[in-house]
Amino acid sequence: MNLIEVSFSTDLFKHYDCKGKIVVVVDILRATSVICTMFHNGVKEIIPVRSIEEAQNYKEHGFMVVAERDGKKLDFADFGNSPFYFTKEIVSDKTIVYSTTNGTNAITIGKEADQVIIGSFLNISSITNYLLGQSKDIIILCSGWKGKFCIEDSLLAGLLSKNLLDSKIFTTKCDSVYTSIDMWSIAKEDLNVYIEKAAQKHRLKKLGLDDVIGYCLTLDITTIVPILNGDRIISFKD
Amino acid sequence: MNLIEVSFSTDLFKHYDCKGKIVVVVDILRATSVICTMFHNGVKEIIPVRSIEEAQNYKEHGFMVVAERDGKKLDFADFGNSPFYFTKEIVSDKTIVYSTTNGTNAITIGKEADQVIIGSFLNISSITNYLLGQSKDIIILCSGWKGKFCIEDSLLAGLLSKNLLDSKIFTTKCDSVYTSIDMWSIAKEDLNVYIEKAAQKHRLKKLGLDDVIGYCLTLDITTIVPILNGDRIISFKD
Repeated sequence: MNLIEVSFSTDLFKHYDCKGKIVVVVDILRATSVICTMFHNGVKEIIPVRSIEEAQNYKEHGFMVVAERDGKKLDFADFGNSPFYFTKEIVSDKTIVYSTTNGTNAITIGKEADQVIIGSFLNISSITNYLLGQSKDIIILCSGWKGKFCIEDSLLAGLLSKNLLDSKIFTTKCDSVYTSIDMWSIAKEDLNVYIEKAAQKHRLKKLGLDDVIGYCLTLDITTIVPILNGDRIISFKD
Repeated sequence: MNLIEVSFSTDLFKHYDCKGKIVVVVDILRATSVICTMFHNGVKEIIPVRSIEEAQNYKEHGFMVVAERDGKKLDFADFGNSPFYFTKEIVSDKTIVYSTTNGTNAITIGKEADQVIIGSFLNISSITNYLLGQSKDIIILCSGWKGKFCIEDSLLAGLLSKNLLDSKIFTTKCDSVYTSIDMWSIAKEDLNVYIEKAAQKHRLKKLGLDDVIGYCLTLDITTIVPILNGDRIISFKD
């Protein structure tokens, strides 16, 4: 039996020992949904960077850069953080540098783990199947909002935890796993109604960027499993 | 309208601005349940201390000391942390020095707040009524387990949040408030069954200390509202 744990925030991740485990990074609104969309549309690789300075430096060296803070596109960047920007025409076979408020931070702090993969509702069945095949303990790392707990990432943690526990290959002793599953059990009746409780929904609405929410809550748009390989995210191939 | 927020762990509390607000500290298993019991049985005041050294120093100066780490009583202490120890005969009119793994830490980190009060299931109606009379924003601080999220404190946060929101005097924009209320809505059907999910239940069971759990989940055993006054906890009097 392998263990599942959930970290409800990047700030809590220091209490988890990720050595030898798989970390599943989740930032539903919007980083990990965007990453899954980019790979679905054929991006070659994504370089996640934490600081604005790094992103700017890449831009000066000719890279395509996606960068936002607090939801808003940074001036020097080519694109902000809506999944709708990243069509096949834009991203196919490209290397994209990516820096966001929460998600890229979460991706980089998981580096001590055996593997870091990218999870969202868009690829939930594929990551479930991937994890069922790995025989490793798992930590689901919710990106949260600037270190705080957030609802939408925890819901994905609940669905993924439930999928894995249902398989009987996994077990848990983690309070956050049980809580995320209970959240999912309530929210699944109507995700688009439940998401009204999420502060991030209202932040995006204020910016006129909430048109992406229904899409980001859609199950199984892609079969891609993005995985960190050194300092770059690539698409896992069997 | 006043605002309610919930911090799911002492590690997340730095993201909350507690100035001018009331912080409600919660450590159901067992610190805040023990404190409520002590006041119910007539303790004069409690001095919460964070470090073992401080507790030991007080002991050397003749104080009655309650101290545990990881559930176990420390050798030099007069008592460990079961609420059942603190009968009227033992605590009435006494000053007690108190140091535990999580709860006393949470009590001391709230000090920037306008007020710090002690919440548990044992005094839930009294703290609800107290807070309804204060016209202040509120942060419910869950002590958690060594910085991690825990179920039992979050359930109290859910019940208290629900009570306050039902009054229509309070509102919230906090994801953790909504989540704790959803947890409570599931758990309330049978708290003694739900608590099986909590890691702390199993930690206490291993130590043979789980006989206190049913008691700690009982509503309204006391009408006391313990409140921090400088470096001491006293009983609030109208």
